[in-house]
Amino acid sequence: MGEIVFIGLGLNDEKGISLRGLEQVKSADSVFIELYTSPMPNFSVKRFEKISGKPLHFVSRKELEEENGEALLETARKGKVALLVPGDPLIATTHIALRLQAEKLRIKTSIVHGASVLSAVMGVSGLHSYKFGKNVTIPFSDGILSETPYNVIEQNKKLGLHTLCLLDIRTEEKRYLSIHESMCTLLKIEEKRKKKTVTMNTLAIGIARAGSENPIVKANSVRKLLKYDFGEPPFSIIFPGELHFMEAEALIFLAGAPKSVRKYVK
Amino acid sequence: MGEIVFIGLGLNDEKGISLRGLEQVKSADSVFIELYTSPMPNFSVKRFEKISGKPLHFVSRKELEEENGEALLETARKGKVALLVPGDPLIATTHIALRLQAEKLRIKTSIVHGASVLSAVMGVSGLHSYKFGKNVTIPFSDGILSETPYNVIEQNKKLGLHTLCLLDIRTEEKRYLSIHESMCTLLKIEEKRKKKTVTMNTLAIGIARAGSENPIVKANSVRKLLKYDFGEPPFSIIFPGELHFMEAEALIFLAGAPKSVRKYVK
Repeated sequence: MGEIVFIGLGLNDEKGISLRGLEQVKSADSVFIELYTSPMPNFSVKRFEKISGKPLHFVSRKELEEENGEALLETARKGKVALLVPGDPLIATTHIALRLQAEKLRIKTSIVHGASVLSAVMGVSGLHSYKFGKNVTIPFSDGILSETPYNVIEQNKKLGLHTLCLLDIRTEEKRYLSIHESMCTLLKIEEKRKKKTVTMNTLAIGIARAGSENPIVKANSVRKLLKYDFGEPPFSIIFPGELHFMEAEALIFLAGAPKSVRKYVK
Repeated sequence: MGEIVFIGLGLNDEKGISLRGLEQVKSADSVFIELYTSPMPNFSVKRFEKISGKPLHFVSRKELEEENGEALLETARKGKVALLVPGDPLIATTHIALRLQAEKLRIKTSIVHGASVLSAVMGVSGLHSYKFGKNVTIPFSDGILSETPYNVIEQNKKLGLHTLCLLDIRTEEKRYLSIHESMCTLLKIEEKRKKKTVTMNTLAIGIARAGSENPIVKANSVRKLLKYDFGEPPFSIIFPGELHFMEAEALIFLAGAPKSVRKYVK
């Protein structure tokens, strides 16, 4: 009977995988990899093939989403397939769909977890995990202005909660939504609403390259962050709600926030 | 100048660490480990010492929290210290406090992320990450009935969101709050409130040993889950809000939920 092991690559590069993940890759009959659901700009296929001793077969968005992973499932009927994915596997809907498909075909599935940006941003920012409300992805605007991210930030703020904003990516086109562009989009919606959810003076945290050797975590007003150069992707933004005393200290000492953030402590 | 690298051990056992984490351990002058902030019942110090070639120095809750990690900070003034922690580092408040302390003493700090139960439970349950509201820890009741977890579940449900409940642990006493006990506590509060947040018929997902080789993910009514034997810890519970079509399918095919969960699809 066949088998698919979904293996998380963790963050940044080929060293983000766990020892268990690498062990599973080594014992697999075929190893597939997708690198489009989340950006891993520093991942080297060549170096990973050297570490694991296995050739990697790329799977594209088209193969997984339009063709429902047929080629991969066909291989998995005959042996053990390892599917490498960025971050922690099965956070992306497309992996859940593939897993469901496999189980329906009586192909055994299992998961080897990896570090995810979802918990990494909590760690690097020093904010408490239980104070985050629902997260949201800010999409490329491309003419259409989605108000969902703004509404999510607003709803979380009302409850005193932090909002993690993931920024859209189009890995195939190598396009990454920037912190600057995302903030401009939110400010445009603010203008229409005449509210006080995301203004020039709102406190925000811009995060670049969490999990790499040179992450940037910068807490300041939207006005200041708009001018800040965050360098290379991937990016995310946190809009904090009410702060715990220690969260304010963390923002000041670890993210360069002005001492005035202490006024948000509740 | 000194340095502390906070390294996530990921989930379950000594194979949860990333290749980058292991590399950092090997290059450290001293390696400390704490295993009390989160349970890793299958972690073997002996096996880890063999893999890494480094002796591990245990740090207790007392040393980190009452003595503010003084001994560790003193060692870190003179060289590179690796601090191994369960899951993803700096999710626990005590690590943030230590990191702040180090930075104030001009000891350089950095993070190597690991898999966290926060994203792992999303993956194993097949629920979508952006539909989770704030998470909450259910404490041991020990005479005092905290209503916070109930209130968090209620608030999230009103917004159509899922709630991840982490269950309290006292690693030093080897005590783990069970799924059964947690649900009984919530039902007791429900009785006082006469509401419909957590009843015998409420859909819940019990999760045991996420990240291990034998995880259990069981979706059913509270009534059914109360009778289910989840085996060894660690445990967590998810109370789902509204379901996406594919979330319902995942619960049915991956977590044994009755087909009637499709009625929660919105």
